[in-house]
Amino acid sequence: MPRAGLILKLSCPDQPGIVAKVATYVAGHRGNLVEFAQFSDKLGGKFFARLEIETSELDVDPEDFIEGFGTLGRSLKADWHFRRLPFRMRTAVLVTKTDHCLQEVLWRAELNELPVEITSVIGNRDVCRAVAERAGFRFNLVEMDGERRERGFLELRDQLVEQKVELIVLARFMQILPDWFCEEFSGKIINIHHSFLPAFIGANPYKQAHERGVKLIGATCHYVTSELDAGPIIEQEVERVQHFHSPADLVRLGRDCERSALAKGIRYHVHDRTILDGHRAIVFPD
Amino acid sequence: MPRAGLILKLSCPDQPGIVAKVATYVAGHRGNLVEFAQFSDKLGGKFFARLEIETSELDVDPEDFIEGFGTLGRSLKADWHFRRLPFRMRTAVLVTKTDHCLQEVLWRAELNELPVEITSVIGNRDVCRAVAERAGFRFNLVEMDGERRERGFLELRDQLVEQKVELIVLARFMQILPDWFCEEFSGKIINIHHSFLPAFIGANPYKQAHERGVKLIGATCHYVTSELDAGPIIEQEVERVQHFHSPADLVRLGRDCERSALAKGIRYHVHDRTILDGHRAIVFPD
Amino acid sequence: MPRAGLILKLSCPDQPGIVAKVATYVAGHRGNLVEFAQFSDKLGGKFFARLEIETSELDVDPEDFIEGFGTLGRSLKADWHFRRLPFRMRTAVLVTKTDHCLQEVLWRAELNELPVEITSVIGNRDVCRAVAERAGFRFNLVEMDGERRERGFLELRDQLVEQKVELIVLARFMQILPDWFCEEFSGKIINIHHSFLPAFIGANPYKQAHERGVKLIGATCHYVTSELDAGPIIEQEVERVQHFHSPADLVRLGRDCERSALAKGIRYHVHDRTILDGHRAIVFPD
Amino acid sequence: MPRAGLILKLSCPDQPGIVAKVATYVAGHRGNLVEFAQFSDKLGGKFFARLEIETSELDVDPEDFIEGFGTLGRSLKADWHFRRLPFRMRTAVLVTKTDHCLQEVLWRAELNELPVEITSVIGNRDVCRAVAERAGFRFNLVEMDGERRERGFLELRDQLVEQKVELIVLARFMQILPDWFCEEFSGKIINIHHSFLPAFIGANPYKQAHERGVKLIGATCHYVTSELDAGPIIEQEVERVQHFHSPADLVRLGRDCERSALAKGIRYHVHDRTILDGHRAIVFPD
Repeated sequence: MPRAGLILKLSCPDQPGIVAKVATYVAGHRGNLVEFAQFSDKLGGKFFARLEIETSELDVDPEDFIEGFGTLGRSLKADWHFRRLPFRMRTAVLVTKTDHCLQEVLWRAELNELPVEITSVIGNRDVCRAVAERAGFRFNLVEMDGERRERGFLELRDQLVEQKVELIVLARFMQILPDWFCEEFSGKIINIHHSFLPAFIGANPYKQAHERGVKLIGATCHYVTSELDAGPIIEQEVERVQHFHSPADLVRLGRDCERSALAKGIRYHVHDRTILDGHRAIVFPD
Repeated sequence: MPRAGLILKLSCPDQPGIVAKVATYVAGHRGNLVEFAQFSDKLGGKFFARLEIETSELDVDPEDFIEGFGTLGRSLKADWHFRRLPFRMRTAVLVTKTDHCLQEVLWRAELNELPVEITSVIGNRDVCRAVAERAGFRFNLVEMDGERRERGFLELRDQLVEQKVELIVLARFMQILPDWFCEEFSGKIINIHHSFLPAFIGANPYKQAHERGVKLIGATCHYVTSELDAGPIIEQEVERVQHFHSPADLVRLGRDCERSALAKGIRYHVHDRTILDGHRAIVFPD
Repeated sequence: MPRAGLILKLSCPDQPGIVAKVATYVAGHRGNLVEFAQFSDKLGGKFFARLEIETSELDVDPEDFIEGFGTLGRSLKADWHFRRLPFRMRTAVLVTKTDHCLQEVLWRAELNELPVEITSVIGNRDVCRAVAERAGFRFNLVEMDGERRERGFLELRDQLVEQKVELIVLARFMQILPDWFCEEFSGKIINIHHSFLPAFIGANPYKQAHERGVKLIGATCHYVTSELDAGPIIEQEVERVQHFHSPADLVRLGRDCERSALAKGIRYHVHDRTILDGHRAIVFPD
Repeated sequence: MPRAGLILKLSCPDQPGIVAKVATYVAGHRGNLVEFAQFSDKLGGKFFARLEIETSELDVDPEDFIEGFGTLGRSLKADWHFRRLPFRMRTAVLVTKTDHCLQEVLWRAELNELPVEITSVIGNRDVCRAVAERAGFRFNLVEMDGERRERGFLELRDQLVEQKVELIVLARFMQILPDWFCEEFSGKIINIHHSFLPAFIGANPYKQAHERGVKLIGATCHYVTSELDAGPIIEQEVERVQHFHSPADLVRLGRDCERSALAKGIRYHVHDRTILDGHRAIVFPD
């Protein structure tokens, strides 16, 4: 990622000349294309692109550059989004009991591998408090069991809004989100599911995998929609297993799949390398 | 695999002393253990083993050795099976239109990588005749469309029985087998399914995978039971895919998964490296 | 790949505005960009791109379009190459004894997975003749052992020139090529080396791998230069191995790596998805 | 691993009847074999085995059982080693600057995934002190730069001896160990090398890998011997890379290979799943 610059994500109906128009707009204002990834979806008739633009030589203010792009964007009937660099995405991490995904996220944030600012770690149990706090992050307990469920999610929403988060990571958060919550934070919630979706939807996927006798287990990082475990997939990982692996072994081996898939999924999201396209996610990996 | 020898597969209720008893029987008759793979399934309370025994120094005839084992086997309440080496498993390959799995099997047989004797290639279409015949194998067309289905499967059964096959490979054979057929050849039919089971059961799995936007596609080699795509899994392979891969690309990339998983699955079966355990297959890979 | 169109490969010193200029040239003549992959190498200061252009709406002849591009190309100080589609690359396959890589290439060609026209299979032994001929290809024996080496390579050169090949595949061809031969066909010779280069350069890599006790073996598909096993790498594959695998097992497992890496390497080359950059190959995979 | 029991590792010249004798000894004293992995190395003429024995029904004291085995072991001309379970291996972690491998080890220890007792974290720089101390571990700085090298290693040796460590993990410890040190702790030092050995021995392997243009990078976990990066390999991991990955990207992607390979390597060692055999390591994975 350039130190100072812009990321532009764009999707529009496919049509001749898009690349020329967009690149000419950038070059015309002395922006320098560092990366230009694009995808013409012949089946869906749509065009998707992601540009990294180095702006140190720009002949106008970046804000002016962004505003001026609107005329072109509208003529292409595009959806687009600019991000100014450098930036750190404000991120909340939601947890329940297990902490391996939380630790992975905190570790990569600390290492500066992920440009995120962890605004808080929020648990519906108090179990992960120590892990969060010793790493220097705020931990909020929001109870949402049984009758407290609705009130809990309202409180959670308020915290997230107040923290101005752009990303909510479900790091093995074991509560099904209410539909209104999924919609309010649509495109901003990333979950790690502990199976190779769409196999083994729902609870206890490792137990299901053991009973089915699969030879590979997996983990799936996906955007959350109101349909359980059916949101757009960002990344998947698998690990080879054998007959002698017990369900407990699958849990252990699966942890590594989960950590890896979640870390990559977050990475692609915070670097604006994902574009949603209905049930699917376009991902320009790095 | 030793040039001359025996393979013993054994499963029985788990109990102390099995290894000692079995190994002592072998050593007591001057058999030499080349390989001894075993698995004590704590959850299921069962014991499984596979032994390769070099028999050149045996103090009795191999037949006598095999018969004498019966007393021990029965005392362990075991199921067991001896195979005399060298051997080539009599194998029929069933095909419809696509020939990549057929070619893979023929190629590995020809290379002596798989100890099989292809008794015939049988198609419910005539498409693969040329591939089979130019490689020197007999090709039989058995029509089984529409009304001819029942008669076709009866004819197929007769051919397989007459050829004394021990293995029926469904190399992208696009007909659902009747239940009676699955039962008659139980444990002898290996299928390659073009998805990472249990995801995408049934028809057109690559199309399903494309629509779901998965980031890995796969293939599954499994024993056939009367429940569709639900038999014990022997081997699975995956390949990474991206958003720009069309369903046709998935078909192309999937072919390599299918060829690899099928070849490994057959290899484990013909080397007696698989033991069925209900819905699961114990596999001692090499 | 589009049915009718052009592929443009381009490399030039990195500079602002390249994408805009190239895309504008294409769009200005009503070419439609189907794919535009590019790479700005910050370390080397170079720019690389590959474009697939659908030409059915072009406002000039494709030849005219290609010629007109020259002015832009020269102003960018670029190297570039156009390929008219559809096309089949004229390809010779060189073999010695083992035939698995040969079979893989012939199979993929036959399946139309690789757009190649096999002009001949050439062996320095007669071993692979049957495999080539039964698949319907011409087989030429060119002896080059001992004293016949120099004369053999001259004869080989003459055959390749006469066949107008654009690609020479060394499908386990066990002769070191003379320098003059590497230079004459520079960028047109693809080899499959049976190790994970740069580990185990030279002879008997599987034996070396066994002695070193590695836990993964591999294969490397690379362009051939006059330095042994040091040409630009196109693709690599690995397979997990264990202590019990003998050198013969590594040979067997390695065959699958070799087939896969070679097939992908050829695919990238014949689809013009590779651009040479000194010791490295830029590869835009599909 | 059983809660209470014994692990027996054994290597001896291959000979008929070993399994029978060993298993009969175990069963004769009412030990229960939970796992019995063995390997007959035809090439080297050696036999290797690892047994997990559940001892709750043993008819003698475990110590007596262990002592009594000696008669059999000597008659087999074997090397053998018993481990009483449960146990935690006393382990020191050596670091320099980068902390990702350290964090991985501490995390897995804390999660009880690895049965180790971290006796101390020792650095030749002070950089990792905070990571170690906030996780609750002692951190010792031992300076060994330039003239202090010899004195530093003597001090290190004294600390390790005083802590009675059975395992020394070089978690990206950037000092070459003196020969006398390697010999004193022979078979007890595990290193993670940041390349796919034997490719890229020595310094800066990611830079070497970038220059060579490899398509896969890797990491190797191995025992340390006095020959640089040439000790027996326990585990290797690879990750796919492309031309656009800079050396810094390779460092980032390689961290995940390093963490994974090191964690598995330590796991196999502390569960006594490794047996050294000259330049190679026999590994019975779980």
